[in-house]
Amino acid sequence: MNFGSDNASGVHPRIMAALAAANEGHASSYGRDDLTARAAARVREVFDAPGAEVFLLGTGTGANALALAQLCPPWGRIFCHRTAHIETSESGAPAFMAGGAQLALIDGADGRISPQALRARLFDYPQVDEHDGRNAVLSVTNATEWGTLYSPADVAELAGIVRGAGMALHVDGARFANAVAATGAAPADLTHCAGADALSLGGTKNGCMALEAVVFFDPARARDFAFRRMRAGHLWSKHRFLAAQMIAWLDGELWLQLARHGNAMAAELAAIVDRAGLERLQPVEANELFVRAPRALVAHLRARGLRAADWPDAGDDAHRGTIRLVTSWATTGEELRAFEEAVQSFAG
Amino acid sequence: MNFGSDNASGVHPRIMAALAAANEGHASSYGRDDLTARAAARVREVFDAPGAEVFLLGTGTGANALALAQLCPPWGRIFCHRTAHIETSESGAPAFMAGGAQLALIDGADGRISPQALRARLFDYPQVDEHDGRNAVLSVTNATEWGTLYSPADVAELAGIVRGAGMALHVDGARFANAVAATGAAPADLTHCAGADALSLGGTKNGCMALEAVVFFDPARARDFAFRRMRAGHLWSKHRFLAAQMIAWLDGELWLQLARHGNAMAAELAAIVDRAGLERLQPVEANELFVRAPRALVAHLRARGLRAADWPDAGDDAHRGTIRLVTSWATTGEELRAFEEAVQSFAG
Amino acid sequence: MNFGSDNASGVHPRIMAALAAANEGHASSYGRDDLTARAAARVREVFDAPGAEVFLLGTGTGANALALAQLCPPWGRIFCHRTAHIETSESGAPAFMAGGAQLALIDGADGRISPQALRARLFDYPQVDEHDGRNAVLSVTNATEWGTLYSPADVAELAGIVRGAGMALHVDGARFANAVAATGAAPADLTHCAGADALSLGGTKNGCMALEAVVFFDPARARDFAFRRMRAGHLWSKHRFLAAQMIAWLDGELWLQLARHGNAMAAELAAIVDRAGLERLQPVEANELFVRAPRALVAHLRARGLRAADWPDAGDDAHRGTIRLVTSWATTGEELRAFEEAVQSFAG
Amino acid sequence: MNFGSDNASGVHPRIMAALAAANEGHASSYGRDDLTARAAARVREVFDAPGAEVFLLGTGTGANALALAQLCPPWGRIFCHRTAHIETSESGAPAFMAGGAQLALIDGADGRISPQALRARLFDYPQVDEHDGRNAVLSVTNATEWGTLYSPADVAELAGIVRGAGMALHVDGARFANAVAATGAAPADLTHCAGADALSLGGTKNGCMALEAVVFFDPARARDFAFRRMRAGHLWSKHRFLAAQMIAWLDGELWLQLARHGNAMAAELAAIVDRAGLERLQPVEANELFVRAPRALVAHLRARGLRAADWPDAGDDAHRGTIRLVTSWATTGEELRAFEEAVQSFAG
Repeated sequence: MNFGSDNASGVHPRIMAALAAANEGHASSYGRDDLTARAAARVREVFDAPGAEVFLLGTGTGANALALAQLCPPWGRIFCHRTAHIETSESGAPAFMAGGAQLALIDGADGRISPQALRARLFDYPQVDEHDGRNAVLSVTNATEWGTLYSPADVAELAGIVRGAGMALHVDGARFANAVAATGAAPADLTHCAGADALSLGGTKNGCMALEAVVFFDPARARDFAFRRMRAGHLWSKHRFLAAQMIAWLDGELWLQLARHGNAMAAELAAIVDRAGLERLQPVEANELFVRAPRALVAHLRARGLRAADWPDAGDDAHRGTIRLVTSWATTGEELRAFEEAVQSFAG
Repeated sequence: MNFGSDNASGVHPRIMAALAAANEGHASSYGRDDLTARAAARVREVFDAPGAEVFLLGTGTGANALALAQLCPPWGRIFCHRTAHIETSESGAPAFMAGGAQLALIDGADGRISPQALRARLFDYPQVDEHDGRNAVLSVTNATEWGTLYSPADVAELAGIVRGAGMALHVDGARFANAVAATGAAPADLTHCAGADALSLGGTKNGCMALEAVVFFDPARARDFAFRRMRAGHLWSKHRFLAAQMIAWLDGELWLQLARHGNAMAAELAAIVDRAGLERLQPVEANELFVRAPRALVAHLRARGLRAADWPDAGDDAHRGTIRLVTSWATTGEELRAFEEAVQSFAG
Repeated sequence: MNFGSDNASGVHPRIMAALAAANEGHASSYGRDDLTARAAARVREVFDAPGAEVFLLGTGTGANALALAQLCPPWGRIFCHRTAHIETSESGAPAFMAGGAQLALIDGADGRISPQALRARLFDYPQVDEHDGRNAVLSVTNATEWGTLYSPADVAELAGIVRGAGMALHVDGARFANAVAATGAAPADLTHCAGADALSLGGTKNGCMALEAVVFFDPARARDFAFRRMRAGHLWSKHRFLAAQMIAWLDGELWLQLARHGNAMAAELAAIVDRAGLERLQPVEANELFVRAPRALVAHLRARGLRAADWPDAGDDAHRGTIRLVTSWATTGEELRAFEEAVQSFAG
Repeated sequence: MNFGSDNASGVHPRIMAALAAANEGHASSYGRDDLTARAAARVREVFDAPGAEVFLLGTGTGANALALAQLCPPWGRIFCHRTAHIETSESGAPAFMAGGAQLALIDGADGRISPQALRARLFDYPQVDEHDGRNAVLSVTNATEWGTLYSPADVAELAGIVRGAGMALHVDGARFANAVAATGAAPADLTHCAGADALSLGGTKNGCMALEAVVFFDPARARDFAFRRMRAGHLWSKHRFLAAQMIAWLDGELWLQLARHGNAMAAELAAIVDRAGLERLQPVEANELFVRAPRALVAHLRARGLRAADWPDAGDDAHRGTIRLVTSWATTGEELRAFEEAVQSFAG
């Protein structure tokens, strides 16, 4: 029972089959092949964004950092939640790619940024002169790092503030499929119709091998991005193998099927946790849950094969700690049952 | 009555005279002149640091950013107070010079970082693997941006934590003279004897025209710093004119005389403010004070010639705002009296 | 008949099968899986370098730029051939990754750097003081961009100069397999035994989907490289799919078999060109050849389906131009015959 | 007799007097003072460029690197002469400030770039796709590093090529005063009227203490430059002391008087060299000359007090070497006579 991360899962068979099918003969490299054109066209359709510019690459950190570098000048500031992946887990990638831009962190319950918190944080950085740097971008993660969601209305409210401040809005969609599946909202409504300028769209955690896209809804925002991707080493030469993943992932709404499965597994896991009387920290809205439990129980579960990340939290103490459980397209009912049995077998 | 900033003051006559005296004939450029060697030697003496490496340059932001870049890898994190100049007023210079390093902000009353707050903030960034970046430097500002002080014991306590975490300690000494003058501590005791690795030593705010030094107490820390300064454009060609300022500034403890004057003027100004029954926000330990006053009074004072920066604070409201008053070597008794009269003339 | 580039080829069936085989259940992400450990061990064996540090990633530009950034300080200079990929085709990636390092170009026949040319170029940059920057790295490409080779003795001679100048030696091995296959030298003899510090080892052009490795033969050279790869977004989360490619590619010397095939196809193609009386520009030592031909002939060949890059050269004129023909593991005898027939069918 | 560099000279008395005169009372910092506004206005007048944006700072490397960073994207290429200061003597500052931009070097006699050489070099970098980077800027140095000149027509011819290629034109004017004085051309005719977009205007080598300006003739080119200067640490706080230098330097054409003197001294020195039958390498058009002489003579001159830089040249050999002699506003007739006597006293 591996709930360590959704990127511990493998590649969905339909994605794997698409890779094999794409492996026919020669194809022009660096994205000048037919599959790449089709993949971009499919993204545009799915997002109902005929003018959008779509760039494929292989990693989520690459996608986030390059998208942010495009939206933020080197002397700019990127606002994000204190627990955003770009802050906690990318070793400074956005600052590097953007030539020294800074993150400005925002607190907020359940991993979400509230309009009030955003306004208060912007107030910390009045824009008087060149000493102040430039307030440039808000990056929201949907689904959040705490497995919660922004609705289209949530995004739109933040976007209104952002727009008023002359800033841009980026959506870190490493788990965007989970957000679409859970909210039931149209992809467009969670992004450009709500005011987002750019999206990092993640396939890797949700059934692909290595596939992310950076989508600029206004093509003017994408100017020279091709240079940026190139010099960061993120332009694949055998580009058809990125494109094939994207086409198969979107085909027949596979991406949403997989996300729905991951979300459903998380809900079942939450029910198991609740039945066992354990403490959950956040509402479970997507494919992650956070459980504060006696450390002895956690050790017991790990001895039974549980893979889950420690997630230090303010409420932890010597006896109780927090773990994060992530489900994915590949999570099985057997894993859930094994988890429940392992919990029940704890005598502590 | 200009309390806008200590860098609104001019150049002390003895510094000006030293510049004129240095202007004799030719001299080797780029710091290969005799005055530069003497200036570095004088800094070493004053800091009782015979092995220190001393680099002169013209701006405080240059000094801070280059010193931090030297101590922090591009994937590193620089911890500092939420109100530190490197965070609020340098447009991202440290991140730029350090190739994308990030600031991690710490809260704390009166502009000071407490050991507890530092420990808690380090806890936010466990050092598990390459996702986490590297906790690299603590930068403390002494005197602080709120006109308060760290004692040698305060610095040493923070340095102990820093050392234990494998980090380096930087002192932003834009107003270091004020700190030495106010604490009465030896320069060495406020820096390397307390565990500091590098100091940005500021002369500009305290009687010089354009003079800062970066001091590395352990010469091994200074490796290749000359390249760093050069490619940032901070190596003066007519370097003797930096050196002459430094020599004159340190000569006969001019730097401390000037700082004592600035500090004393701030104390008198605080007394005036207190006599007027106005609200002061911080203890006045160096050469700055912060006054929350009716906005009508502030407008009245400005109409009478007051120069002082607005300093937005959480306690402000529609009727009351906060201003910062800074004194310097050039502040006069006349300015204090003019301020008091202006306050008294307010009928509001 | 696609001789456009070796990255227009697909993925070898054994690599594809390895990807499918690796797709079993969950696996720890970010390289903490068993396959990654095995892949690194295999590289060490093949290079007879038990202490080497091996990092996998997906693109050649990423591999080159990160390796060079590791070896070159931001104020350093990377010497390379005027036609090196890092100069002509990476949009400044090495300078970006290395925080502003510069390339110093070296002329040389057949895409090769001679010891004399290297010495003369180093002479251009005396190392007097900080104005001069630091001469830091020599990067040699083997096989070269002109399809020629360095022997172990060639590499060692350059390495001797490099070492004497306090510099490091990097090998851009995007086509390293072709070099090993063609020279018959042991991988160790073409790299660390000849004095190389780091190798970018390319699998993508030679049968893989997206696979490159950065190898540091002295582990001390690899310090903190993991942070560098991470913050550039080049750490794959589903890392097993890089590792699986590497294992299969090296298994049973597949990499050399494929390279031998590519090299042999180039030799046959050269023979066809020579039989047709066309002008070849370089000795054909690996898997590339350069043909200067009447523009009318080139147009005729393209109309018959030829894919080949224009390769502007000093000897071109209005009537004759140069094209580059690249063969690969996937080049077939049918393609060669089609090429010959197309040439013969030209009446011009 | 110091001909080591024009930055070995001191500060002209009128500049020194202006610094003293500016030292009255308080003044707003960071360029919000009256003198700064006047200095900028004076530059605009002298250049007949009413819309130009003018930024003052303290070093020539800062001015060059920041100006180029403004004109060149991080993935861009800056074309310059092989002997340009930005290539040989700034430790990679332009690449650093521009986030990784690259220099493309151009050969040319007498330190000058010819239109043919520029065209040929541009041909090396076809602009096909993102692999190629962006050809962004041409930087010409006037007067050149070899003491030669571009006329307005020369600049205009290069500008035409540059414009046609979608690039910008930067003039490195560290010795621009010498160029104006020598050509007799109006400052406007050597810059914006000839097609230049930006100028680094150097005062330091020509009588100032530390003063350079970056001038953007089209204000649209200057967008956000204030942020760039700030985060590079090049915004002086006591900014009036930069402005005072500029005003005095331009006042009464002092800058041109000083440059004329330096140029005249170089012409006299050349006559001395010629009378002695020594070999001069370049026409002497501004304030530098290059002499190839027996090494024994050079040693003899140095023993007599000569300061002059060794200038390694292709024509040097074991017995003869090249030195650079630079004159300045401060060069005296006594120095020339001392030089001539020292030459005559050589018995070798």
